[in-house]
Amino acid sequence: MSKPILYSYFRSSCSYRVRIALYLKEIDFEYRAVHLLKEGGEQKKETYLKHNPKGEVPFFIHEDFAVAQSMAILHYMDSVWQMPSLFPKDVKKYSICLELCELINAGIQPLQNLKVLQYLQKELGVDEKNKDKWNAFWVSEGLFALEKRLQLFQGRFSLGDDVSAVDLFLVPQVYNARRFNVDIDQFPRIKSIEEYCLTLEAFQKALPENQPDAPVV
Amino acid sequence: MSKPILYSYFRSSCSYRVRIALYLKEIDFEYRAVHLLKEGGEQKKETYLKHNPKGEVPFFIHEDFAVAQSMAILHYMDSVWQMPSLFPKDVKKYSICLELCELINAGIQPLQNLKVLQYLQKELGVDEKNKDKWNAFWVSEGLFALEKRLQLFQGRFSLGDDVSAVDLFLVPQVYNARRFNVDIDQFPRIKSIEEYCLTLEAFQKALPENQPDAPVV
Repeated sequence: MSKPILYSYFRSSCSYRVRIALYLKEIDFEYRAVHLLKEGGEQKKETYLKHNPKGEVPFFIHEDFAVAQSMAILHYMDSVWQMPSLFPKDVKKYSICLELCELINAGIQPLQNLKVLQYLQKELGVDEKNKDKWNAFWVSEGLFALEKRLQLFQGRFSLGDDVSAVDLFLVPQVYNARRFNVDIDQFPRIKSIEEYCLTLEAFQKALPENQPDAPVV
Repeated sequence: MSKPILYSYFRSSCSYRVRIALYLKEIDFEYRAVHLLKEGGEQKKETYLKHNPKGEVPFFIHEDFAVAQSMAILHYMDSVWQMPSLFPKDVKKYSICLELCELINAGIQPLQNLKVLQYLQKELGVDEKNKDKWNAFWVSEGLFALEKRLQLFQGRFSLGDDVSAVDLFLVPQVYNARRFNVDIDQFPRIKSIEEYCLTLEAFQKALPENQPDAPVV
């Protein structure tokens, strides 16, 4: 049986989510780096687009099955490698889990996507200062709502004392928030969840700077 | 037992997805209009934010349970009112279903969100022409990838001869694409799925112009 393959870019927050899941579930996988900037972006090459026409990472292959979009990959992985489970079984808790994941997945991250920022700069002439303001605005707005919704639960993780997919969306998003100089102290519950997660080996291994394609500092 | 409540705005494509599901499943519900433009936006009022701190529609309440984000609402509804099922049971088909939904949910729609367009205009001084170009660019890019991925399946609907959540994301997105003057003829499979869906009563009832808060023309 061949190893599953993850197409990833060290700095991609959506790839980061999937990496955390791979390490949590202790899945032996092959890391294939896709450099989103080099030579105009390796994700735009014909060979890559043939697999994944959206030209994005992450992209996951397991045996004869290939799937894009972190939310879909995480659900697939959770069915094949069940422990630890990332999605609650209880219908209401599962629905809230999805809501909080989507708050980041559809509510914050798409506006920080590299190609969106490139469009703002190249097509609309937005300067660095306004690009940073844009990033900080959407991240802050989203994390503010997430902080409020997280009050539904207590515990070390987002949904209580067990890890869930929400944590896999939260930690990479907070990582990006710091890059955009958003003050995380405004969001005490988010901050404490991130701090606890980052004490765990799976979350550490998945950090951008620990990937094979991260630049050597 | 009280009726479920949907907070919706007639033109919101995310609300439109949920409306289709409500009509497909023949759920008797209460429609509560949230006007996203009137008086600076009813979704920004304290009374609404108390329920849904992200200040968005759709928002769904059933008995003592409240949930936001169309993806989460659709999963909740699919558990409580099971027929017709919106998400395939087979793991691989389910994962592809999620991928295609997310391609729209996280890949296209967030960039067309009303508040994003308002930010472009008010904060970045983007004019009408460039706003239209932005909309058309992201919609075209996303539908192009969706069209390719839909080639995995044949049938009247996105995933075959049964309706699925993908159709509920696709139809409202195509509706918006037309508003942005995107040529849908470029995407023959998407076009034929939309055409078939719009012959069905549930999809017709859910159309923006058929909502109680739609302006009388």
